[in-house]
Amino acid sequence: MNMHLKTLVDVFHATRLQSVLNCESLELDDYGLQAEPFVSPPKWHLAHTSWFFETFILKPFMEDYNVFHPAYEMLFNSYYNAVGNQFPRPQRGLLSRPILSEVMAYRDHVDSAMADLLGQDNHQERLSIIQRCRLGIEHEKQHQELLYTDIKFSLFRNPLYPAFLTENVNHHEGSMDPVAEKVQWQSFTGGLVEIGKSLAPREIDTNDLGSDVFGFDGFLFDCETPNHQVYLSPFALSKRLVNNREFQAFIDDGGYQKPEFWLSDGWAVVQKEQWQQPLYWLDLDGVGMEYTLYGLQKRQPHQPVCHVSGYEADAFASWAKARLPTEQEWEYAVTQQGHRPIEPSKIFHPQFCSDSEDEAVEKGLLHLYDRCWQWTASAFRPYPGYNPAKGALGEYNGKFMSGQWVLRGGSCVTSADHLRPSYRNFFYPQDRWQFSGIRLAK
Amino acid sequence: MNMHLKTLVDVFHATRLQSVLNCESLELDDYGLQAEPFVSPPKWHLAHTSWFFETFILKPFMEDYNVFHPAYEMLFNSYYNAVGNQFPRPQRGLLSRPILSEVMAYRDHVDSAMADLLGQDNHQERLSIIQRCRLGIEHEKQHQELLYTDIKFSLFRNPLYPAFLTENVNHHEGSMDPVAEKVQWQSFTGGLVEIGKSLAPREIDTNDLGSDVFGFDGFLFDCETPNHQVYLSPFALSKRLVNNREFQAFIDDGGYQKPEFWLSDGWAVVQKEQWQQPLYWLDLDGVGMEYTLYGLQKRQPHQPVCHVSGYEADAFASWAKARLPTEQEWEYAVTQQGHRPIEPSKIFHPQFCSDSEDEAVEKGLLHLYDRCWQWTASAFRPYPGYNPAKGALGEYNGKFMSGQWVLRGGSCVTSADHLRPSYRNFFYPQDRWQFSGIRLAK
Amino acid sequence: MNMHLKTLVDVFHATRLQSVLNCESLELDDYGLQAEPFVSPPKWHLAHTSWFFETFILKPFMEDYNVFHPAYEMLFNSYYNAVGNQFPRPQRGLLSRPILSEVMAYRDHVDSAMADLLGQDNHQERLSIIQRCRLGIEHEKQHQELLYTDIKFSLFRNPLYPAFLTENVNHHEGSMDPVAEKVQWQSFTGGLVEIGKSLAPREIDTNDLGSDVFGFDGFLFDCETPNHQVYLSPFALSKRLVNNREFQAFIDDGGYQKPEFWLSDGWAVVQKEQWQQPLYWLDLDGVGMEYTLYGLQKRQPHQPVCHVSGYEADAFASWAKARLPTEQEWEYAVTQQGHRPIEPSKIFHPQFCSDSEDEAVEKGLLHLYDRCWQWTASAFRPYPGYNPAKGALGEYNGKFMSGQWVLRGGSCVTSADHLRPSYRNFFYPQDRWQFSGIRLAK
Amino acid sequence: MNMHLKTLVDVFHATRLQSVLNCESLELDDYGLQAEPFVSPPKWHLAHTSWFFETFILKPFMEDYNVFHPAYEMLFNSYYNAVGNQFPRPQRGLLSRPILSEVMAYRDHVDSAMADLLGQDNHQERLSIIQRCRLGIEHEKQHQELLYTDIKFSLFRNPLYPAFLTENVNHHEGSMDPVAEKVQWQSFTGGLVEIGKSLAPREIDTNDLGSDVFGFDGFLFDCETPNHQVYLSPFALSKRLVNNREFQAFIDDGGYQKPEFWLSDGWAVVQKEQWQQPLYWLDLDGVGMEYTLYGLQKRQPHQPVCHVSGYEADAFASWAKARLPTEQEWEYAVTQQGHRPIEPSKIFHPQFCSDSEDEAVEKGLLHLYDRCWQWTASAFRPYPGYNPAKGALGEYNGKFMSGQWVLRGGSCVTSADHLRPSYRNFFYPQDRWQFSGIRLAK
Repeated sequence: MNMHLKTLVDVFHATRLQSVLNCESLELDDYGLQAEPFVSPPKWHLAHTSWFFETFILKPFMEDYNVFHPAYEMLFNSYYNAVGNQFPRPQRGLLSRPILSEVMAYRDHVDSAMADLLGQDNHQERLSIIQRCRLGIEHEKQHQELLYTDIKFSLFRNPLYPAFLTENVNHHEGSMDPVAEKVQWQSFTGGLVEIGKSLAPREIDTNDLGSDVFGFDGFLFDCETPNHQVYLSPFALSKRLVNNREFQAFIDDGGYQKPEFWLSDGWAVVQKEQWQQPLYWLDLDGVGMEYTLYGLQKRQPHQPVCHVSGYEADAFASWAKARLPTEQEWEYAVTQQGHRPIEPSKIFHPQFCSDSEDEAVEKGLLHLYDRCWQWTASAFRPYPGYNPAKGALGEYNGKFMSGQWVLRGGSCVTSADHLRPSYRNFFYPQDRWQFSGIRLAK
Repeated sequence: MNMHLKTLVDVFHATRLQSVLNCESLELDDYGLQAEPFVSPPKWHLAHTSWFFETFILKPFMEDYNVFHPAYEMLFNSYYNAVGNQFPRPQRGLLSRPILSEVMAYRDHVDSAMADLLGQDNHQERLSIIQRCRLGIEHEKQHQELLYTDIKFSLFRNPLYPAFLTENVNHHEGSMDPVAEKVQWQSFTGGLVEIGKSLAPREIDTNDLGSDVFGFDGFLFDCETPNHQVYLSPFALSKRLVNNREFQAFIDDGGYQKPEFWLSDGWAVVQKEQWQQPLYWLDLDGVGMEYTLYGLQKRQPHQPVCHVSGYEADAFASWAKARLPTEQEWEYAVTQQGHRPIEPSKIFHPQFCSDSEDEAVEKGLLHLYDRCWQWTASAFRPYPGYNPAKGALGEYNGKFMSGQWVLRGGSCVTSADHLRPSYRNFFYPQDRWQFSGIRLAK
Repeated sequence: MNMHLKTLVDVFHATRLQSVLNCESLELDDYGLQAEPFVSPPKWHLAHTSWFFETFILKPFMEDYNVFHPAYEMLFNSYYNAVGNQFPRPQRGLLSRPILSEVMAYRDHVDSAMADLLGQDNHQERLSIIQRCRLGIEHEKQHQELLYTDIKFSLFRNPLYPAFLTENVNHHEGSMDPVAEKVQWQSFTGGLVEIGKSLAPREIDTNDLGSDVFGFDGFLFDCETPNHQVYLSPFALSKRLVNNREFQAFIDDGGYQKPEFWLSDGWAVVQKEQWQQPLYWLDLDGVGMEYTLYGLQKRQPHQPVCHVSGYEADAFASWAKARLPTEQEWEYAVTQQGHRPIEPSKIFHPQFCSDSEDEAVEKGLLHLYDRCWQWTASAFRPYPGYNPAKGALGEYNGKFMSGQWVLRGGSCVTSADHLRPSYRNFFYPQDRWQFSGIRLAK
Repeated sequence: MNMHLKTLVDVFHATRLQSVLNCESLELDDYGLQAEPFVSPPKWHLAHTSWFFETFILKPFMEDYNVFHPAYEMLFNSYYNAVGNQFPRPQRGLLSRPILSEVMAYRDHVDSAMADLLGQDNHQERLSIIQRCRLGIEHEKQHQELLYTDIKFSLFRNPLYPAFLTENVNHHEGSMDPVAEKVQWQSFTGGLVEIGKSLAPREIDTNDLGSDVFGFDGFLFDCETPNHQVYLSPFALSKRLVNNREFQAFIDDGGYQKPEFWLSDGWAVVQKEQWQQPLYWLDLDGVGMEYTLYGLQKRQPHQPVCHVSGYEADAFASWAKARLPTEQEWEYAVTQQGHRPIEPSKIFHPQFCSDSEDEAVEKGLLHLYDRCWQWTASAFRPYPGYNPAKGALGEYNGKFMSGQWVLRGGSCVTSADHLRPSYRNFFYPQDRWQFSGIRLAK
């Protein structure tokens, strides 16, 4: 997000526009593509993010709001049971209608109404509107990331291995600079520390929707709250992420054939899915290739290994005689180091871990937000005192607090301003289609 | 097929054009739609029919033929193992690439090469080229029908119930003319009769590709051959097809709840799929509706019941104290009556069985080719002495001679010139997405 | 059946006793064994055959019959919907209760009541009782065969490969006598022939239940009726069955890897189940073994190949440039030759095809009833004019006339007196656990 | 366990005998029963517990040990990949061989060898033998509990609803004493507390295998270690367990129909499995019944609700505006109160929560170990510094630390001496066949 944006309306429009811009590289034929139930077609993402504003803001708060199409309430509801039934997720790719131009008209209709509503300075629900609008913006940024991960997954099923992007492809391949061969460790003393954040119940000046309310501490998902104390024993984190060369060594050592490295559930998945390597790795005529958003590329040994499941991350750590960090260790360490997310690279593949060893020593923890999400050893569970929102919006995070693992950090397809040390991403440990990698702990 | 067409090249081009014209009503978003593995997306039909000419004619017979794209051999192979691997059928809807314009370019490329090859009067494989071209034309007509049945099925999954066609919709709804209420029966004596056809091995004048070689007797699929004798006991066929009103009576009598009417395998499907009525029947607010290519329409009692499985046809016949005809009875009866297929109505839904009883008495068997395919009691098995073609084209029919039932006649979405008394259509008895109805026997 | 038995009561008791005797080799631990839904545990067979007499004779015809246990009506109903609900077939192995001694008491209870009822000479439903008793006897003989096929299948899942039988094991292995290496063919002219049988509606003397009513022509299942005419072209049948050596040649020629020999549905099963050889073939340390009712035995090249599916039989025939016979060809040929089933060998594995070529020339068709059932090319469909019984007993055969193939003849585990030229056995073409083999036609 | 037992050998034999005694009520027909893959047949439990001693003690440590049967290593291996392949878990019920008497002979063989080995005072691996023997004893006690839970589940599939036990059935039904209607809460202040235990590396006197080494602190599974600090906010626990009456109120309020109470994964299971009530609840003719080890019994409102999944426990807590305790809260609270497991009641169904309110006030937390296991909100994950054993025994707990939830306490089918405050039981949140109930926290 551009920090020069002054008002909530500006940010709203910029975010909405960004979703459309991210689709520019798509062919018309791609908009309905859904290779598996857990990914969604681009057209559906475009519609659902509009549905979010319509459902949670326009319908409850805008007088005389004209619903665009009554069937959309069901068609584009993702998982909010309190709103009503949902069109079955595995069939989203079957929604050839509404056609793309109708979905675009839906977006325009919602945007126009939102601009109107946000301009009503004296609306008696002004604060709720603003808060939900900020949630809707964060929500749309999450779907912008999902658009990349989902289309990558769906295009990969095509034996033509189409390239989604063509810009930056050369830069993406990178150079073979000197790299930090050995893993460096950063130590932390731990103790009784504070984890999570709480929003102070301050009085928001609803007439001054300036940039401050979107600052680093300006928004929190409910699952990041409340702040609370935990006790941490001393620990250390690897400064950089595990790279392809190291993961290849795990493979070469029979990592995928040796149950002793694996959690029992993970080993069952390895057997059932016959995993032999990370999701997008391919060997063509003896050459190690990797499917990227730029099409098939030669696999680079010093890029961070990406698109591994939590089970693979855990097994690698076990093989490496280390372990995954807990989410508390990760958050505490990052907070200690004072790192902040950096500007995005606009290169949509995790780049070389190219820092020299000296740099690594100097900088501390590297690649926190801009390469791959980092699997943690922590189940996604509520913080002590967690209190989800009332009604349908309470379903945003709370009901998923079972069976999933927390990932921390961010990836090369995440909006940089979307991230913060307390952000808790979560996926099932068998999921591989996110840009997820490995940082070790011990 | 227009009988004024004078040459094979004309027929070829007319057929190829027709496939594209049939897609005119589609939205761009519809071309990749595949709701279940047994239907194919329109784009795939357009590509596969081109693949057929390329694979079986251009590649083997055209010198210096320039293959359009090497990957298409696998991508658009339907089921010909002798040609090589096939892209998995359930994933055809995931082929967003090649995009539609590329598929259209593929069609043009093939058409142009075919025109060139068909113009080579002295080609030493001239006879094979002509014979395979005629097969390819028939093949494409089959896919033209599948395009209608498949898109109907896929659009039906959309809760918006989109209309594929908008023309003729009023006429389609028809008028409430007097109808033949009672089933009339036509009796046949049977005896030792001849079934099937054999192509006489005559010398085709390859320089005279006039209309005669495409006449009624001009083409046979191998499964229609050879002609052979069978013994038939006396039997009778219903003159018209079973209509919606009659099928509703079966439902109202608990037909879907009473196992005594059903074949064991059929009853298992009824339980598993929880069938309660034909495929496209819906009850909305107490009104009986039917999904058609014109969108949701009110169900008409005197239209032929359509989109029933063979199991439902058999159960209905059992309930009606009748049975389904054998394919030999059907073919013999039709041949006896001398019926020929009529010009198509251009209305893509089975019309009223609106003949008065007097007409029915006069005309004999009605609605043979232009309403619904008619399920028979016959398993699709080879005729005595059946001899499939050598090589990949031998896979066209022969390998499917297990587990499927024969349907005879034709439907409102079949090309009229495509049909003949000896034509054997075949589907699994649980299939319902074809325009399949019921003619009774006793 | 021992032809010296004079009365129906004698035959009834002898049949009932035989079922128990067939279980003598079982361990107590085996009685509940059910490895797949399509096989039943021995205890269930023992109970269900009793249920048949109780349900169809004792309950409707015996005044004051004392039902053994009310829950058994549901527990031991196989598939008769008209009787009521059935305990789910896949869970029959979970019925540890009633325990074996209770099932045996159930048998005794039914036997005693049946003897009582059969002794009531003046019962006004005497004819129905006799007819249903004869059906019940035939039914129990079918289950006696199933007991062998089912326990063989279930024990095979045990890596200990237990032997069910220990007697005759040496004889079973046979000697290496001279064998007919080449297939001999017997030719038939065909023409308009009669197939099937019809029971003459003669007056049965219900006071003289002597052996004549159980003679060769004394009992027919409804699916064998009525007799009717069919036209057969000239054909030939192989005199003996295909043997293991010949089937191995098919395998060695890549038979299981070449789709061109297979029906499409069959090829799909080969891929899904990864079939590489007949059901009970094993290779242990390079030695070809076969699991038999006598445990693991060395595979014998001149024994008939057994436990092949219909798909494998069809593929073998295709590879051998022959085909499977139709059921009409088989029945006509056997009737022409005047063969009758012979005394059983008491060796429960198909023996050598050990006749010399000279013998084969002399004897005509060999091994019709005493080695393996012979797959035919015919779908199991009703004969023209077929009319099943009313009520639940009408479910015995009629509702299965879909999707299954006819087998003719008999096997080494079939009661010899159970068989006749018109007998139609039927299983799905993917089934392999019956003693099913291959006779070729051309 | 009888505390008068003086030596490890005594305890070993008493434990081994107890497993056999627990089977006394079984019919022979029950020993192979396995209704679902996640339960095991009684015969398999008897064999596997012997396999444990043979595999981990006799084979590595006893010179000249005579292996009972070479195939048992694979047949009775549960999940130890480091030992080798395992017979597929879902097929354990198909092992009719070895028969029961052979398994009993296997037990005797192992017991005799173990007695011999334990008597070798000067064995150089004496300490390992003793430690592993203690582990084997604990392991066998776990399987004694599983025998109850598994046979209850398998017998429940039988529509006869057989009673496993007949003793104590009257007492089981209990009396309608005054009960504590309202939930009482016990508050705890929390703070920085110690959780888990560590075994002091003391010198065990291997010549004095007296009762002290089996005392309360004498044995720990690795997952209970090491002890470590956690910070707990103030909390309160319900003194007694949720009872049937209260759970019925949840049902009556539409608990199973309202997604807002459920975790997303839980709701998916509710829909898929169509859960309407706890596992063994039945309504027969309008009477609320419950299947117990004593057969079908009338449901008692003041007995603890039992056989609920973790999802149901969580949903109930959500409905009750409470939550589940964390495992740390549970352990800390119990330790604070100084409760110890009590003598078992020998009644194998959770008894009334019959204490009056006054008693409840006085006693603090009730029913910790002797009614139902108590679901916690904690994922089963390793404690900080967790270090599993090397080799196959390291698979005992560690590899299951994913996807499962911790239960604390014990149940009416658990050996009382088997339990302790630090014991961590774990099952998947969808599992219901354990004696699992609900204690609330807030």
